[in-house]
Amino acid sequence: PDASAIAGATDRNGQLTKPQGALGRLEDLAIWYAGWRGNPRPAITAPQVIIFAGNHGICAQGVSAFPPEVTAQMVANFDHGGAAINQLSKAAGARMDVHALSLETPTADFTQAPAMTEAELVSALQTGWSAVDPAADLLVTGEMGIGNTTSAAALAAALFGGTGADWAGRGTGVDDAGLARKVAAVDAGLALHDVADPLEALRCLGGREIAAMAGAMAAARAHRIPVILDGFICSAAAGVLHKLHPAGLDHTVAGHLSLEGAHQTLLDALGKQPLLSLGLRLGEGSGAALAITILQGAIACHSGMATFAEAGVSDA
Amino acid sequence: PDASAIAGATDRNGQLTKPQGALGRLEDLAIWYAGWRGNPRPAITAPQVIIFAGNHGICAQGVSAFPPEVTAQMVANFDHGGAAINQLSKAAGARMDVHALSLETPTADFTQAPAMTEAELVSALQTGWSAVDPAADLLVTGEMGIGNTTSAAALAAALFGGTGADWAGRGTGVDDAGLARKVAAVDAGLALHDVADPLEALRCLGGREIAAMAGAMAAARAHRIPVILDGFICSAAAGVLHKLHPAGLDHTVAGHLSLEGAHQTLLDALGKQPLLSLGLRLGEGSGAALAITILQGAIACHSGMATFAEAGVSDA
Repeated sequence: PDASAIAGATDRNGQLTKPQGALGRLEDLAIWYAGWRGNPRPAITAPQVIIFAGNHGICAQGVSAFPPEVTAQMVANFDHGGAAINQLSKAAGARMDVHALSLETPTADFTQAPAMTEAELVSALQTGWSAVDPAADLLVTGEMGIGNTTSAAALAAALFGGTGADWAGRGTGVDDAGLARKVAAVDAGLALHDVADPLEALRCLGGREIAAMAGAMAAARAHRIPVILDGFICSAAAGVLHKLHPAGLDHTVAGHLSLEGAHQTLLDALGKQPLLSLGLRLGEGSGAALAITILQGAIACHSGMATFAEAGVSDA
Repeated sequence: PDASAIAGATDRNGQLTKPQGALGRLEDLAIWYAGWRGNPRPAITAPQVIIFAGNHGICAQGVSAFPPEVTAQMVANFDHGGAAINQLSKAAGARMDVHALSLETPTADFTQAPAMTEAELVSALQTGWSAVDPAADLLVTGEMGIGNTTSAAALAAALFGGTGADWAGRGTGVDDAGLARKVAAVDAGLALHDVADPLEALRCLGGREIAAMAGAMAAARAHRIPVILDGFICSAAAGVLHKLHPAGLDHTVAGHLSLEGAHQTLLDALGKQPLLSLGLRLGEGSGAALAITILQGAIACHSGMATFAEAGVSDA
């Protein structure tokens, strides 16, 4: 971030026609955003939402309430404008792109083998990196992939410790038996693979859409594009960057707290406070896309309000 | 609310391309809004934000960090587009109206006399009622009035019990001595007046802008316009309707939890869960205006998403 822009934004914030601090977290958001954009009085004019989709061999373990073909069906739904993320992107004025990653070739069942080869991991990371529009000024990465809460739970456990019981949740709505299968699958994956290295954890336990999200978030940092994190799966992808460098997520803010059980634990591990907590557990980037409007409100106030001097208002 | 529209919206919600319940509170919001609009697939096309301003005799007790002339200065700032609420209304696509209520004639100091005469109360209620556009499809009422957190604290205490210490807070930022003066003023007002009747509590302890907000919220109900409540002062005004009829606020949702100390207690008394909690304590309708975008997202999903049948997606 740009220290001069932060100083300029902080100074401006102190002069706006409101009691000091009265806009609460909106003030912090505006100064953070100004710093990453290198502009003390920025605007949000080109938000981008990118949805990555992938299929998961772990579905063979009976870990999802939905059949794997739903991934491709939902990609078609995204392309035709019918999903929740289409509506939320449009409501926020965001461009939305969809990248389906080799849906016909699921990852390997990670209880049996590494989910991806090195070449597959690199390809997915590159797809994510290249998907980011360098001219965007805000990024949301979302995902679709039947089985991917199990993959994300395994990845989170590899990155931050704990077992399947700590990280597996209900996902799209599995019953108790399905949840038990998720827990067992995560534990089997952790036992099989050597996952001390974050990228190796991503390769062995992750998925193509999860790797693509990590690649996109890394590209956003290179382009100084602030990122709003979505729910559990997006946060697990972000965890890879966090473990690679402790400041690796400084250009990100947590958009919402998902109802998926371990999301709070994961956000705590990332040191992030969510902007929203509305009981969403859909994925697709939906919670983060909803939070775009909060950041837009923060920037609208910061960059549009009059100062005490401009408005002729007496300060306290 | 319209039972047929609620049934239709509930049915539609169950068919949309998402796991059941995965949009969390957005689903409840959409069905609630559909019921009040009498349309199972509604749109939000005409949100209205109304700011009421009033001055308070209680300022003579040294209860605010800002001088009383700031009320009129901020009204000018609203009229020139420089305040936070101007930016947030614009960002939400909402029409914004400003009504200054006899700023040159503050209410009486309620530690000495009733804040308003009956005629003044009725006039303020009527101003609020008439300010609502019957063609609006969503309403936010905000306020500006130096000293009005003290008035709102006294009103809340009269409506829901307790003393000045339970309800007075920092407002725009008073120091400990100022807070002690607020507590004492509330207690003096409670001791002086007979406030068992909610409207009499409003007359003796409230203010013109607080009464106008109550009048506007009542008008909105008559027009079937859902209302998003703002912070502490707006919630105190809403409390009058709540005490007049236990279902009097069914057409309202709490937009946010303010940092003003007793707002959580007040929302609990109203039986409302806030949509946002971002540390705002500005008033002006700012928190509620920010929450407009959340409701817009809920309605965009509800009315814009494809059903499982339309999209050819396999259900669980």
